[in-house]
Amino acid sequence: MSLLDLFRSRNKTNTAAIAKERLQILVSHERSTRSGPDFLPELKQELLAVIRKYYPIELDQVKVQLGKQDDCSLLELDIVLPVNVKADVA
Amino acid sequence: MSLLDLFRSRNKTNTAAIAKERLQILVSHERSTRSGPDFLPELKQELLAVIRKYYPIELDQVKVQLGKQDDCSLLELDIVLPVNVKADVA
Repeated sequence: MSLLDLFRSRNKTNTAAIAKERLQILVSHERSTRSGPDFLPELKQELLAVIRKYYPIELDQVKVQLGKQDDCSLLELDIVLPVNVKADVA
Repeated sequence: MSLLDLFRSRNKTNTAAIAKERLQILVSHERSTRSGPDFLPELKQELLAVIRKYYPIELDQVKVQLGKQDDCSLLELDIVLPVNVKADVA
């Protein structure tokens, strides 16, 4: 089962249970060495800035988790979006 | 099992098998209505622009998948990073 399949199966359940606008972002940074800087905390700020171009989210609408395991850093953003605001793209 | 747990278990296997720098980004946009615009294609460009601030990636280093299921749009980016370039953050 691919990571995309896992994502789909989980979100199918959520969709049935909760009718709301929600954006989830998962970032995995896998490194061959642990000596380099971890740029996920910086990336988190950049991602939030990008999302804010489309949706006027507040920080209390965002759940953030940063984790690490072996050579892999993980960032998870779970954002409840304003339901009456549509993304301003064609 | 949380989505983060699934991510961790998968990446643990990958880390053991492949020693390289890799960035994976999964975005799930769950909407209560299907009438609004899908902003994930636009978001894809923004995400790549952000990653390029840290790593000089070329488009052939990026695998992109866009999918849709029910009220959920999915974006998956799988990026092989240059191994000798470190992210320029403190």
